[in-house]
Amino acid sequence: MPRSKYFGKDMICTRDWSVDALEEILALAGDMKRERYSSKFAKLLLNKTFIMFFYNPSVRTRLSFEAAATELGGHAQFLEPSSMRLKSSKSAGETIEDAAKVMSRYAVGIGIRILEDKVENYGEGDELLREYAKWSDIPILNMADDKFHPFQGLADVMGMRENIGSGLKGKTLLQYWGHGALARSWCSVQESLLINSRMGMNIVLAYPEGYSLDHDVIASVKANCQENGSSFEVSHDQVSCYKNADVVYSRNWMSPDAYVGGFDKQREIQKALPYTDWICDAEKMKLTNGAYFIHPMPVDRGHEVTDEIASGERSLIYDIAENRLHVQKAVMALTMSEDW
Amino acid sequence: MPRSKYFGKDMICTRDWSVDALEEILALAGDMKRERYSSKFAKLLLNKTFIMFFYNPSVRTRLSFEAAATELGGHAQFLEPSSMRLKSSKSAGETIEDAAKVMSRYAVGIGIRILEDKVENYGEGDELLREYAKWSDIPILNMADDKFHPFQGLADVMGMRENIGSGLKGKTLLQYWGHGALARSWCSVQESLLINSRMGMNIVLAYPEGYSLDHDVIASVKANCQENGSSFEVSHDQVSCYKNADVVYSRNWMSPDAYVGGFDKQREIQKALPYTDWICDAEKMKLTNGAYFIHPMPVDRGHEVTDEIASGERSLIYDIAENRLHVQKAVMALTMSEDW
Amino acid sequence: MPRSKYFGKDMICTRDWSVDALEEILALAGDMKRERYSSKFAKLLLNKTFIMFFYNPSVRTRLSFEAAATELGGHAQFLEPSSMRLKSSKSAGETIEDAAKVMSRYAVGIGIRILEDKVENYGEGDELLREYAKWSDIPILNMADDKFHPFQGLADVMGMRENIGSGLKGKTLLQYWGHGALARSWCSVQESLLINSRMGMNIVLAYPEGYSLDHDVIASVKANCQENGSSFEVSHDQVSCYKNADVVYSRNWMSPDAYVGGFDKQREIQKALPYTDWICDAEKMKLTNGAYFIHPMPVDRGHEVTDEIASGERSLIYDIAENRLHVQKAVMALTMSEDW
Repeated sequence: MPRSKYFGKDMICTRDWSVDALEEILALAGDMKRERYSSKFAKLLLNKTFIMFFYNPSVRTRLSFEAAATELGGHAQFLEPSSMRLKSSKSAGETIEDAAKVMSRYAVGIGIRILEDKVENYGEGDELLREYAKWSDIPILNMADDKFHPFQGLADVMGMRENIGSGLKGKTLLQYWGHGALARSWCSVQESLLINSRMGMNIVLAYPEGYSLDHDVIASVKANCQENGSSFEVSHDQVSCYKNADVVYSRNWMSPDAYVGGFDKQREIQKALPYTDWICDAEKMKLTNGAYFIHPMPVDRGHEVTDEIASGERSLIYDIAENRLHVQKAVMALTMSEDW
Repeated sequence: MPRSKYFGKDMICTRDWSVDALEEILALAGDMKRERYSSKFAKLLLNKTFIMFFYNPSVRTRLSFEAAATELGGHAQFLEPSSMRLKSSKSAGETIEDAAKVMSRYAVGIGIRILEDKVENYGEGDELLREYAKWSDIPILNMADDKFHPFQGLADVMGMRENIGSGLKGKTLLQYWGHGALARSWCSVQESLLINSRMGMNIVLAYPEGYSLDHDVIASVKANCQENGSSFEVSHDQVSCYKNADVVYSRNWMSPDAYVGGFDKQREIQKALPYTDWICDAEKMKLTNGAYFIHPMPVDRGHEVTDEIASGERSLIYDIAENRLHVQKAVMALTMSEDW
Repeated sequence: MPRSKYFGKDMICTRDWSVDALEEILALAGDMKRERYSSKFAKLLLNKTFIMFFYNPSVRTRLSFEAAATELGGHAQFLEPSSMRLKSSKSAGETIEDAAKVMSRYAVGIGIRILEDKVENYGEGDELLREYAKWSDIPILNMADDKFHPFQGLADVMGMRENIGSGLKGKTLLQYWGHGALARSWCSVQESLLINSRMGMNIVLAYPEGYSLDHDVIASVKANCQENGSSFEVSHDQVSCYKNADVVYSRNWMSPDAYVGGFDKQREIQKALPYTDWICDAEKMKLTNGAYFIHPMPVDRGHEVTDEIASGERSLIYDIAENRLHVQKAVMALTMSEDW
């Protein structure tokens, strides 16, 4: 067939896609991993351009998206909006309407990355993507915004399934706030909660008082668990929460206070200092059901997790990093290729 | 045939090319637009490198040239001269002779963009391109300099012809100074006047007193009109100039004063403030012969033109932006491909 | 065959490779130069990604590596470590272990360029490459570090052989300290001495007192000469050293003092001022055996060498610059391609 039924569809959050559609992505990503340079996939974007906008730099995301385009026969252009002369409240320049409409003439898709430090209020990054999507004739892919990180969520699911033979349904994910010196975004964590609750996992969300996430997202996660007959629990005990976990995802995130009076990462790092015992280590892992360790990387070793666990035999971090490439290739092929 | 008769030819200004040669470019660009990803064109620069030098950043130009290389099977490298350690009056470094001769060994063409704020005096940007062309064994393409913008001119002609079925000969182009907060270069405007006067259009050039353009360019434009039996007129009336226009091109440009005592964009923006009634709007458009609106983008909406006109049904701005890609592909193929 | 016997091997210094292996590289580079865009080579890295890290910018190296990837059908990604959030003694971030392991999942090779001004002590740049090589599953290519520049050395040998029909054995190379305003790295010069002494050339190393090179490297060079029955000589006379030279390589390098109390290029430039008669010129060249002139570029004309010699008919600078492309393509193909 010339185009998939997902041709032209944006990927801003996995919750904008049905579970069946996500399963199609994951199945194709599996094929693409098994037959990485097969001629079946090598020309799906031949001679086509994918545009990448990095409001925030990121090596892993850039590498994996640019490699994805190359492996599909196309080319990804790396742009930083500092060179874009876009209109803002402070300066004359081009409107998003004009920028998006022109890009739609040159390319087959646009990836955008914009995190909390580039916007004034929580959610404005995600809104920017949806503004581009409104005017663009070609799909907008979220390469991580202040709310969501869909390709990380897909890569997490793919990596866990590769190792948990019996599937994710009924297994328990501990989403753990790891102490850290980097004050991370909510995007990876929220996407993990959203997609894994839809996959039927039990969710334990553990963090120190004061580190709650987006209430709307958490309401969705609870509803997903209820619908699937799985459990949802919040814990503020940094040890007991490990009991019976099948997967531990230890990752720092900032508190809602980070946005109060303007985003301030340094204040957040100071605030986290009392919580150095919030670390994933071998002793705590003994309480689990032989859990796997996952993380979206870069890992803040010695804070979020010990070296022993991060480099241990049940760590899936490199496999999941690799899976970013495969799920991205799958979504790019499904939403942009006219040459199936 | 292995090479076109234009193989190796520079494109610095359309006036360096015969009208017949420009017609060949436009015909090929039309074919390339109709059959965008056809195998006929997809390997013309296979495995070949095109070098892009951006003294001034530009998203549209970069996107369209890089996509052009990709669509021809090749690859465009994005370079900023800040990383180039070139010799200057102030510092040791490499001569243009050496840089151009080495690049000729690696690549099949070089695109250069350099505007007025990167040079000391008007014309030095264009001279830099001609210095590269002197030493280079491969074609130099002007991606906009302080005098000319040949690919914009070609895209304008292509876009007008697509909509004015009977051709451009005898039609009237209003080249209009739009008020603006950006103090634009002369390059797009001068290239428009040069190429459209050669295509047989009547020219009305309208601007407030004090905003005259390069006298040498205007002399050429007058000569072109005389040769073609078309009219050339200068107007300082921001309304009556619209009468009988078939195409309105409203675009800001800076005054010759911008260069006096060193290029100063801010001073220019201040200077333009009294002329806010120099805007292309629906009322003025009523005076025309049902004119199309054109602009090289980015559009400074609310200054150069109203939203109503820029987004209106007779606006050709997105089509012309797309045509940049096609005329660039055509010239790159004609001057660089050995695989026809 | 699917892979060469050098598949996966790093290229950090030519002395890590046997002379036989270097001869295989040079033979393949010769084939690739003669049949530049042949289909034999055009798909060796099809759909594959090569990563380039530039701690120091370099146009020639970037152009030639990126073009090499393009000509082999692959794609080179340009990265600057400023965007990499790597862990350092001063800041949290990703370890080289994690960075290298993840990149190994996305790409087929990594090139790194890091010179003396990016490290605290001589040799730390080279150590960084070897640290990457320790963790990476894919080959590390040295795009110039503070000690070595293997692709320059290979290109020099290739260029000299193309012109000296009878081969390099028994011919005399004058490695000459040219006065300069740029305080150059030791890497090109040391690589030249190492590889050319292994190729059987007699070596004359000429510099003003106080400009000695790495003692370990010089010990290797002497041992190479002894093994090959060729001569090794150090001279501090800027004229008599030219006698009987077959090739003159005039290039500035900094003194060991440049590292004392922190790397200081400006102090070095000051220090070199008294030595303006250390320049390669026509009069000195008359003392040679009709020598060729070579240089890794960019040439500091008027300091290291006169225009007359650099642009003269026995100058090989452009041929050698071109050869960078061919030797890089050969090593990339041998160490990274699975499609022979």
